[in-house]
Amino acid sequence: MSPVSRCLLSLALLAASTVHAQALDYDHQENWKAVHDSAQSPIDIPTGEAKAGDALEPQDIRLSNARAALDVVDNGHAVEVEAKGPDAMIRGRHFKLLQFHFHAESEHTVDGKHFPLEGHFVFRAADGRLAVVGVMYREGSANPLAAKVLAALEKEGHGELSKADISVLLPKDKAYYHYLGSLTTPPLTENVEWYVLQAPVSLSPAQISQFRARYAHNNRKLQELNGRPLIRFPSVSLTANRTAPASR
Amino acid sequence: MSPVSRCLLSLALLAASTVHAQALDYDHQENWKAVHDSAQSPIDIPTGEAKAGDALEPQDIRLSNARAALDVVDNGHAVEVEAKGPDAMIRGRHFKLLQFHFHAESEHTVDGKHFPLEGHFVFRAADGRLAVVGVMYREGSANPLAAKVLAALEKEGHGELSKADISVLLPKDKAYYHYLGSLTTPPLTENVEWYVLQAPVSLSPAQISQFRARYAHNNRKLQELNGRPLIRFPSVSLTANRTAPASR
Repeated sequence: MSPVSRCLLSLALLAASTVHAQALDYDHQENWKAVHDSAQSPIDIPTGEAKAGDALEPQDIRLSNARAALDVVDNGHAVEVEAKGPDAMIRGRHFKLLQFHFHAESEHTVDGKHFPLEGHFVFRAADGRLAVVGVMYREGSANPLAAKVLAALEKEGHGELSKADISVLLPKDKAYYHYLGSLTTPPLTENVEWYVLQAPVSLSPAQISQFRARYAHNNRKLQELNGRPLIRFPSVSLTANRTAPASR
Repeated sequence: MSPVSRCLLSLALLAASTVHAQALDYDHQENWKAVHDSAQSPIDIPTGEAKAGDALEPQDIRLSNARAALDVVDNGHAVEVEAKGPDAMIRGRHFKLLQFHFHAESEHTVDGKHFPLEGHFVFRAADGRLAVVGVMYREGSANPLAAKVLAALEKEGHGELSKADISVLLPKDKAYYHYLGSLTTPPLTENVEWYVLQAPVSLSPAQISQFRARYAHNNRKLQELNGRPLIRFPSVSLTANRTAPASR
């Protein structure tokens, strides 16, 4: 067993309420070490190992107020688009979109397969909890918002877009793979809920090339899942009787 | 500004989508450092600084299936009661109780004030997320479940209780203070949602003494809030028209 697996296992055992009779030295708490770094992102998603979510809670992702003023920048390691206003109900809780940005090639892999580009839509809840919705992009038809983002970058590396509909950069079908992970750039914070959407979205080959002309290797290496639960939420078409289709 | 504050600030800036033009060395990712340890528990709760929660999501805590078989142990650093089965809907999501245990004096303080004993009810969601509901105990009338727990400990330091109603160890009114923190014992994991209930529960002076006879100093020292949002959910009596009263 690797040191990381061992650490994760001991954490799981603690959390699972298995009791170890173990005294703690409350008079020398400065010696206590925080154990982190075993729940990092990105990961490979072994789709066959994903389990159904918890039927006792809402499981879907619903985007609303998707039209927002956008600020497009090249931040030195990614193309990033700042946004204020779009809302998402994610598994019953409310988040607001902060920004989205792009990695090439994709940071997550699906059954070992990379996509040429991955978008990360970073949401935050009122208590500070972060949730990132990951979208895989593949070659196909051109995307109208990607065109605007790329055009904005041409002018001095940044630009503003008024009232753009960000939902066209996400698939209509919000089926996802969910796990608890981290930011994929420093400070690599681990309070992050990940939702990697199952359905890819098309960009034209020229659009993908334009993103990759800026950054073609800004993907963090894959991290170990280390026994974390991997949860799937199936295609909306399978759940249409239970939840309203996600708005686009 | 302290190093911790500085670290928290840089994290907040990143999360808040403020863009720093900064290249990252993707060819030497082994040099990236995970920054953690700035969102620890317990904390002092400055009640006047708590903000209202997000009205767009469910905010209440509802306990159900509260009767469960319990396994009482002295784990070497706390009196702990293992439980399987009680459920809680916490801010719209489903958790299951794993165990509860006691710290003396209280780990959290409320406006600087300690209570003689604090109970931690540790819940876990299907994705592994931990939520801990903290209950403050004060001197008053005797508690029937505390009596059973203490009696079970007398026999060889552990004992089983069949189908006990754990809800009597929590207040009926689930008004709370919420923030994102950590486990208060190693590995000090930071994926923890904290809900410190506002209403204390009474134990008799003799019951509190019996808990403290085992552990009277198993409280971790206070940690800095470091700018984390502190959220309050008001007394059920103020929200009776909006949400069903929490079952006891």
